[in-house]
Amino acid sequence: MYQYIKNGSVTSTKGFKAAGIHCGVKDKSKKSDLALIYSSEPCIVAGTYTLNKVKAAPLLLSKATVAKSKFVKAVVVNSGNANACTGKQGDLDALAMQKKCADSLNITQNEVLIASTGVIGQKLPLDKIKNGIDKIVPLLSAKGGIDAATAIMTTDTKIKSYAVKVKLSSGTVTIGSICKGSGMIMPNMATMLAFISTDAKITKPVLHELLLDSVKNSFNKISVDGDTSTNDMVLLLANGLSGIAINKKSADYNSFKEALGSICISMAKAIASDGEGATKLITINVKSAKTEKEADVVAKSIANSPLVKTAFYGEDANWGRILSATGQSGANVNPAKISISFDKLPVLLPDYKLVINEVKAAKILAKSEITITVDLANGKKEATWWMCDLSEDYVKINANYRT
Amino acid sequence: MYQYIKNGSVTSTKGFKAAGIHCGVKDKSKKSDLALIYSSEPCIVAGTYTLNKVKAAPLLLSKATVAKSKFVKAVVVNSGNANACTGKQGDLDALAMQKKCADSLNITQNEVLIASTGVIGQKLPLDKIKNGIDKIVPLLSAKGGIDAATAIMTTDTKIKSYAVKVKLSSGTVTIGSICKGSGMIMPNMATMLAFISTDAKITKPVLHELLLDSVKNSFNKISVDGDTSTNDMVLLLANGLSGIAINKKSADYNSFKEALGSICISMAKAIASDGEGATKLITINVKSAKTEKEADVVAKSIANSPLVKTAFYGEDANWGRILSATGQSGANVNPAKISISFDKLPVLLPDYKLVINEVKAAKILAKSEITITVDLANGKKEATWWMCDLSEDYVKINANYRT
Repeated sequence: MYQYIKNGSVTSTKGFKAAGIHCGVKDKSKKSDLALIYSSEPCIVAGTYTLNKVKAAPLLLSKATVAKSKFVKAVVVNSGNANACTGKQGDLDALAMQKKCADSLNITQNEVLIASTGVIGQKLPLDKIKNGIDKIVPLLSAKGGIDAATAIMTTDTKIKSYAVKVKLSSGTVTIGSICKGSGMIMPNMATMLAFISTDAKITKPVLHELLLDSVKNSFNKISVDGDTSTNDMVLLLANGLSGIAINKKSADYNSFKEALGSICISMAKAIASDGEGATKLITINVKSAKTEKEADVVAKSIANSPLVKTAFYGEDANWGRILSATGQSGANVNPAKISISFDKLPVLLPDYKLVINEVKAAKILAKSEITITVDLANGKKEATWWMCDLSEDYVKINANYRT
Repeated sequence: MYQYIKNGSVTSTKGFKAAGIHCGVKDKSKKSDLALIYSSEPCIVAGTYTLNKVKAAPLLLSKATVAKSKFVKAVVVNSGNANACTGKQGDLDALAMQKKCADSLNITQNEVLIASTGVIGQKLPLDKIKNGIDKIVPLLSAKGGIDAATAIMTTDTKIKSYAVKVKLSSGTVTIGSICKGSGMIMPNMATMLAFISTDAKITKPVLHELLLDSVKNSFNKISVDGDTSTNDMVLLLANGLSGIAINKKSADYNSFKEALGSICISMAKAIASDGEGATKLITINVKSAKTEKEADVVAKSIANSPLVKTAFYGEDANWGRILSATGQSGANVNPAKISISFDKLPVLLPDYKLVINEVKAAKILAKSEITITVDLANGKKEATWWMCDLSEDYVKINANYRT
């Protein structure tokens, strides 16, 4: 059993402090661009990272640090510059950022993880970040989660921050989080960062397993396909301060997993609904598939279809595009068996029987959150994806992002 | 050796007539919506078709007809309605359209191929098409190719029509063509139709081989990925009227293949550059790949990246997005070895060495045709794709296409 905490964040978890400031990376907008998360106690850590062959320097460094460190205590993040495609200089800058943070916090370099997000291919303004680290350390606070969530934003329009309390057999643990959406609603270059804290006591292998499982059903099911950017990263830090241990194959394990899954889905949906230029959040349920994979590829194909996305933006009940996206997914489906509904309204029945009530459909499509269900009548498996619509603003935002 | 014919079309080929009229399928716009292509002599025919699991009724019927007919003489095409996802009624309507055309031309049903393009999921207005067929037959003319090209358009803004004369050892043959772009610039639901005529004498297996080869390097290399819509079809008709035979493994075979390849590339580029809302045609050359497949997946990944497309629309020299699209292609490339240029201007050298001259790059990016070259430094294979940019107009056009 878990419960969301109002205005919860990564610092809702016992022992975690955070802060967010403007240090000058975003030199034009003056928005905040440096975040620091710190745990008073050493944390076990697990991470998942982009599968893009082009990996940013801070990501490679953090991945290596997670792999070799028994514990970590801090995560420092800048926005405005991704430190990606920056070659050897980028590696050196990432190391310098890590070292500066360690020195300022008086901990070892291996206890610091770093992340960057923003423009690709430009040298990191290291001096600004170093000065920023000097300024941000004294500001660390148990109320700083929202400031940190603000400082990691790029084209996000909303702060993304959640926390839950999880009731376990021997007491309550907390899971807190902040994340940033790529802003990008298509399956590439979606720089997505998420930082999750918990005061549960968990071993590294169990933490890793829990994280992978949660990411699979959340961040990997939005059409901000998490595994293809240069900088994508999800980190989960557990400082054990609650004293409550989560062991594998316990009822508590399942409760914790459910809560972590929920918080990850909350973040993923927030990212999808805040896609650049997005006006709607669309949930895609694919049902009655032969295998989980089949359900997944169909849902993914729909979620990634720009024609489906633009139809939703236009509030057009274009079920034909949904059906065609299903047909071109690669799944071995029989289109004549498929049914489609919008929310609870049946639109298409098997044998291409069109039963749509256009007036009712228009009302549903005018909403800001819509669920479409595609029933393949091919088995018992299902999958859920989330996407946003595609508006002119997506193009406007992305046509000149670099400059 | 081949040469393009000025204002050439499908009727530039000896023995081919065509016509195009408005019959009422496009009831609002009054634009022409019915095309007929007819050969006085029986034609050997080859076809390639969408791989989408959702296949339109006319496509299934034409595919079956091509497979079983020794010869065909006519292709009738309507635009404005795709007769896709229309179930049994759609099959009956397609058959009725084929039969009506055969009756009007006084030939057998198996000598008629049909195609439809337009909105999905709406019943074909068969009476309008039948009346139209009555009207169009008397209009067939050796000068009617452009009218036919006009009548198959949907959101296309330009007529797409080409013909070449090919000098062979024993004389000259002609290849003529018309096509319509999907208008859609993304790899799904791109309804792409192309009809190619020739007066060369070719056996069915050789014709089929020639067509597959040409399509592979043209229509399948644009980000209107030809194989994923419900209605995509390329038909090649050879009536033998030149009396010149093309046999396998002759020098003439290669000359003909080269000319057919060129005309298919011309059509593919015309489709890409006329993508909905497109302002630029971008050629993507991927060089020095380990395998042809590697070059292909990288070029495809770049061509399908909405972020790359929007950057070109914004005339932004965003090489980082090109590199990231390369990295997320699935190809096993080393990003540190990659070079990128825009036209002849080097932008990125290995080890992320940025050498871009922003002033020169801006001049190149302002052009309406741009070539980007990505050198993987991984081998000797290459691939070329074509794409257009992504503008706000794409969204406007597609947000309300159905209604």
